[in-house]
Amino acid sequence: MEKPTLPKGTRDFGPLAMSRRQYVLTTIRHVFQQFGFAPLETPAMENLSVLTGKYGDEGDQLLFKVLNSGDFLKAADPALLAQKDSRALAPTIAEKGLRYDLTVPFARYVIMNRHEIAVPFKRYQMQPVWRADRPQRGRYREFYQCDADVVGTRSLVCEMDIVLMINDVFGKLGIRDFVIKINHRDILAGIAAKLNLEGNENALYVAIDKLDKAGPETVRKELSAAGLDEDRLNQLFEILGKAGDNGEKLDYLAGLFEGMDAGKKGVGDLIEIITMLRDYGRSDDHLEVDIALARGLSYYTGAIFEVKVNGVAVGSVSGGGRYDNLTQAFGSKEELPGVGISFGVDRIYDVMDELNLFPPGTGSTSKVMVCHIDEISMRYGLQVLSSLRQAGIASEIYPDTGKLKKQLEYANRKSVAYALVIGPEEMESGLLGLRDMENGSQQKLSLENILSAMK
Amino acid sequence: MEKPTLPKGTRDFGPLAMSRRQYVLTTIRHVFQQFGFAPLETPAMENLSVLTGKYGDEGDQLLFKVLNSGDFLKAADPALLAQKDSRALAPTIAEKGLRYDLTVPFARYVIMNRHEIAVPFKRYQMQPVWRADRPQRGRYREFYQCDADVVGTRSLVCEMDIVLMINDVFGKLGIRDFVIKINHRDILAGIAAKLNLEGNENALYVAIDKLDKAGPETVRKELSAAGLDEDRLNQLFEILGKAGDNGEKLDYLAGLFEGMDAGKKGVGDLIEIITMLRDYGRSDDHLEVDIALARGLSYYTGAIFEVKVNGVAVGSVSGGGRYDNLTQAFGSKEELPGVGISFGVDRIYDVMDELNLFPPGTGSTSKVMVCHIDEISMRYGLQVLSSLRQAGIASEIYPDTGKLKKQLEYANRKSVAYALVIGPEEMESGLLGLRDMENGSQQKLSLENILSAMK
Repeated sequence: MEKPTLPKGTRDFGPLAMSRRQYVLTTIRHVFQQFGFAPLETPAMENLSVLTGKYGDEGDQLLFKVLNSGDFLKAADPALLAQKDSRALAPTIAEKGLRYDLTVPFARYVIMNRHEIAVPFKRYQMQPVWRADRPQRGRYREFYQCDADVVGTRSLVCEMDIVLMINDVFGKLGIRDFVIKINHRDILAGIAAKLNLEGNENALYVAIDKLDKAGPETVRKELSAAGLDEDRLNQLFEILGKAGDNGEKLDYLAGLFEGMDAGKKGVGDLIEIITMLRDYGRSDDHLEVDIALARGLSYYTGAIFEVKVNGVAVGSVSGGGRYDNLTQAFGSKEELPGVGISFGVDRIYDVMDELNLFPPGTGSTSKVMVCHIDEISMRYGLQVLSSLRQAGIASEIYPDTGKLKKQLEYANRKSVAYALVIGPEEMESGLLGLRDMENGSQQKLSLENILSAMK
Repeated sequence: MEKPTLPKGTRDFGPLAMSRRQYVLTTIRHVFQQFGFAPLETPAMENLSVLTGKYGDEGDQLLFKVLNSGDFLKAADPALLAQKDSRALAPTIAEKGLRYDLTVPFARYVIMNRHEIAVPFKRYQMQPVWRADRPQRGRYREFYQCDADVVGTRSLVCEMDIVLMINDVFGKLGIRDFVIKINHRDILAGIAAKLNLEGNENALYVAIDKLDKAGPETVRKELSAAGLDEDRLNQLFEILGKAGDNGEKLDYLAGLFEGMDAGKKGVGDLIEIITMLRDYGRSDDHLEVDIALARGLSYYTGAIFEVKVNGVAVGSVSGGGRYDNLTQAFGSKEELPGVGISFGVDRIYDVMDELNLFPPGTGSTSKVMVCHIDEISMRYGLQVLSSLRQAGIASEIYPDTGKLKKQLEYANRKSVAYALVIGPEEMESGLLGLRDMENGSQQKLSLENILSAMK
């Protein structure tokens, strides 16, 4: 039989990677719960009627579709089959698809459970999503998303909480040198108005969003081709390039929008978010008003966020923003304004790996491996094992009899911190051999002393 | 737009259900880790070449198949399309499928990573699986499996550890009245030999497996139709019905298998497992040798387990057993004997719900809701919120200004334990209103006293 393979773009997570991922996920989960967000899980499969049309044409093409069970061709149109029209045939033979993100399933959940939900509803969700994207370095067809959203309120307390949660998550993970970039869609709308680009705001946002990756030259050319003259281009880049601290930038923008309708609310919101952070007792440390932050997604309407870690070649590790109506795409008439944040687990993992931030021992499961010389010392070892576990110390016994060298090698490969060696001599004296697997040092100690030393 | 729906057989897990499921899953995960099992996660999608043929014909029919991306009909055979031959066409338009269990992906992982793995390899895996089964009460198309397996050793220490883990999991969950039924495939083989049924063992196992659900009458009829005469049927039911404690049953079986080849190893293994448990310092409490335990799966070859909770109308909540070669189905020549246990999360959830065993507060996220009378007390509340969170108390602030009654209702619906009420008077005196949401009692306390009372 041929050696089995994985579908392209998918990954196994073995013991080391899993322990580290659990460390990241548990940290994020803990912060979400500290802030009063409740967990939600939705099924991997959704009806395609729920998913289709929510992510644009490109997104629709990237949905994984699940073949109907049983005789799926039975009701298929013979003409479409004869024409081999994959696109037209698909909806008739596949009614379900794998979820593409966590936002649409969340909106679907809210609509289906509207009457049981206490509003404002704060939910978090940490689950894999699937996209039939072309796999490449750092881009997978299955990956985790970690989202927290509040819906049903326009209160800027939510934005404050998002800034605080980002600070907590990265603080707890030991990532120190990061920036939370914040901007506001109304500030971008103000800039568009200032440049007489009303009605073309989205084109401007998309162009600004590219600045980081494509560079100013390319963006200039694109905007110029789209009809922006030299004067307005210069004005745009002057605004986007405004230097200074948050107060200075917001003062500048307030002046810029003087006498206009657009832009003021955006400036006011950011000032209020920073004021709330101060009332809470936090400075705007790590928070940076970035006038050139746009975020491509068209559904954002208020504050927008993006987090970057300095000194590593990894893109943004977290992002989010405020939107006017979560359930709009489902045609819901009730307005459910909200704000959300998403943490990129894969990228955070890469950052932590590069900066060597995983605590020692993250990859190991048990702390002690009980080793033995013969059958009798193995039986004696069972009692010892029992005492270790009763003391809450994760431990295991080498299950087979065999050379001690082999047992220690095994303990080493499993990254166990200590080996406890038992032979006839140790059973006689009651002093067991405790070997530090890190430095190879060994000492003879009573079980009692070992237990108290471990704690 | 129509109200969106869920695919049949799938479920959302809202805040309360999720908190409870997390409680169960975290408990199981903790026990697995205490025993030195390392986490593994595999992708939801596997190549169908990996999955097909591993679960029998019936299993193959229950695999969810994922349509190839892009123009999936391009290479399809026009003749099969014209004949609408779903079964023959499927492999050409769908190369991937959703995983059906965690064992086959585990075996696939072991084969692909054989050289990086330290043997004996102890892994646990807690992920959803998908089956296109007809949905019915208690049977879903997406459900979690929680498996732990050791492969690469025949040591009965593994069986001992499984019994200990089952005890720990149910003990920690507060489930007291449960039975771990244990039997051995070699004991069943001995019984088959005794009845001159060699070569038909599997038919016998399948029949015995049905005893619980179908009852002895039906099983008798079936075996009779399969050619078992009255004498042997009586002998079989006498053996299966043997009463007594574990020692008495094993003595009886040892006598039964006197002078035979089959059966002895099975009896010896069970005696050794019980001896090891005693060496470890545990009695065989909760462990019951059940001669009528068969478990349908044909790949078990050694000890088999099943756990039932007494006094609830829920089937077995956990099961497993020993097998000779994990990777056999992939044609691997290296023998990788192992033993595994699987916990049924949905059923454990049902048991705990029925017995009312979820600890109070499992469904709530934050412990304190900061409530306020007006804009100014809300700002004051931000400082209070900050102090609570710094003390590690999960808490949130009602994000909007609004009637206190509404805020308290919200706190109540979120199952928050305490509301902290702040108004001008409280700001003046520094004594905040702490309301116990359970019993409605309220007292005025300084923030300091509140913080220390919470801990």
